[in-house]
Amino acid sequence: MNPGIKVFAPASVGNVGVGFDCLGFALEKPGDEVFAKFTDKPGLTIKRITGMRGKKLPYDVMKNTAGLSAYNFMQSLNEPKLGIEIEIHKKMPLGSGLGSSAASAVGGVMAINELLGTRVEKRELLKYALDGEELASTGRNADNVAPSLLGGMILIRDNETLDLHRLPHFNHLYATVIYPKVEILTKDARNILSEFVSLSKMIQQSANLASLVVAMYKGDEQLLGRSLNDVVIEPQRSKLIPHFDNVKKSAMKMGALGGSISGAGPSIFMLSKNSLIAEDVGEAMKKIYHDVGIAYELFVSPINHEGAIRC
Amino acid sequence: MNPGIKVFAPASVGNVGVGFDCLGFALEKPGDEVFAKFTDKPGLTIKRITGMRGKKLPYDVMKNTAGLSAYNFMQSLNEPKLGIEIEIHKKMPLGSGLGSSAASAVGGVMAINELLGTRVEKRELLKYALDGEELASTGRNADNVAPSLLGGMILIRDNETLDLHRLPHFNHLYATVIYPKVEILTKDARNILSEFVSLSKMIQQSANLASLVVAMYKGDEQLLGRSLNDVVIEPQRSKLIPHFDNVKKSAMKMGALGGSISGAGPSIFMLSKNSLIAEDVGEAMKKIYHDVGIAYELFVSPINHEGAIRC
Repeated sequence: MNPGIKVFAPASVGNVGVGFDCLGFALEKPGDEVFAKFTDKPGLTIKRITGMRGKKLPYDVMKNTAGLSAYNFMQSLNEPKLGIEIEIHKKMPLGSGLGSSAASAVGGVMAINELLGTRVEKRELLKYALDGEELASTGRNADNVAPSLLGGMILIRDNETLDLHRLPHFNHLYATVIYPKVEILTKDARNILSEFVSLSKMIQQSANLASLVVAMYKGDEQLLGRSLNDVVIEPQRSKLIPHFDNVKKSAMKMGALGGSISGAGPSIFMLSKNSLIAEDVGEAMKKIYHDVGIAYELFVSPINHEGAIRC
Repeated sequence: MNPGIKVFAPASVGNVGVGFDCLGFALEKPGDEVFAKFTDKPGLTIKRITGMRGKKLPYDVMKNTAGLSAYNFMQSLNEPKLGIEIEIHKKMPLGSGLGSSAASAVGGVMAINELLGTRVEKRELLKYALDGEELASTGRNADNVAPSLLGGMILIRDNETLDLHRLPHFNHLYATVIYPKVEILTKDARNILSEFVSLSKMIQQSANLASLVVAMYKGDEQLLGRSLNDVVIEPQRSKLIPHFDNVKKSAMKMGALGGSISGAGPSIFMLSKNSLIAEDVGEAMKKIYHDVGIAYELFVSPINHEGAIRC
């Protein structure tokens, strides 16, 4: 009798301000749990989804991010007669800019790999997780999936060939993420962006991204802060997020190194050099939303260096 | 009796394809030599300039890149009564995209520092060298001056605060640079560029620049090659350089890792993993210009890690 297995796939911060569509990092919390066990009925079944928080997620395997990634991976293993059922426990907000669909997609494929004991390398699993992520988003972009699966801060040079690179980590770096409970559709967050960027802003933005990489290699927290200066996306998208400027300003005042919009928003992330500052930064951010009566969720977490794990 | 001193300031490759206006590296050759010695006549005098190759460089200290940088540094030392004369020996082509004015500006300030024994740190000298460079170019950009002075490959996050970072070096990395003797005015090279870049190209370009930084830290030459893929500037500017595509293609065929336009052109640089390949790459590039009857100069050089030196 196989009691099944359970995996955890973490939330992630995509874009990271200056790394639009090419940079992301994983959090230790929140995240999704996926259970998988064998069953007599051949094929893959989604038995239960919890934590949808009023939203709807499909039970149809081919339409569910966790389902599709798990299914495609099973197909690749050529085990069509296996019967497996999974449960998806969403333990993080949906549509918050924290890579919820990516976490589920990663959880799906990880759960199969663990249940079957196939020990396929995480790098290999990435493409199946991307299949799932693609269902929920506009393109095939690894900036949430890769950190959720692999952990750490990941730079994606090229999505097509999955030419991606984990940046070295950095002791004590902590993220504070606040999710103000307002809805921003990824589509709207895309549409608000101008299709073009001035050459001078491109130079600033790319020099900042490159300097952020230097900062991670050198462990230079001040340089990390200076580099987190998004001159292209944040000025356009922050309008969609209530009180963005105040929240960021108060976080900086408490000693955060820098920060920006997480993914397509509305979540806002800040990085701090240790957990104490990150907690203070969280208090300051909370206060803004509390005072204006906007509901929120707050997460304070180190950068997650392990990615998805069996637990 | 003080016989005077001599300094060498190297040529440099600015832009480095994906690092438009924010990345540059120094070469071991060619470069400029600047002599300085004390004289009875108070103030700074330019006594001689050689190697102008048919072009004119001003003897007026305030209009000469080496003169102005030397003068401004002397002013900062509060030694108005000193009499110093300098000689500038241009040992590299002017207007070639190899940072000729930057080398002279660096040579000027270095020569004063060495003659006076003031031992001011190179980082401090940078601003005076930039004063000189500014005379000869459109803006105050350190992407040639910083590598020529400091050596290595330098990423400039911000020109205003001189927030710049030397990337780690990489054994055996060799540059092959060919200068086809056609004139491109920096102004024309600027004017041909569109003021705007599409968002998708910005993402590719900045991910490539960031990956180039990763490659330098990891010593990953293949990644360096893949990252040297300029999708913004090269497609626009290469039209100004005769036979650019053929030259690059034949260099790649000989095993170069990658390359692009040096500075504003017309020089073309390629990077290779060792000197043997770099020499072969040079032969292949030469052949193209030889066959069509365009005069050229070829330089094969490791990346220079010392920058300007007393010699």
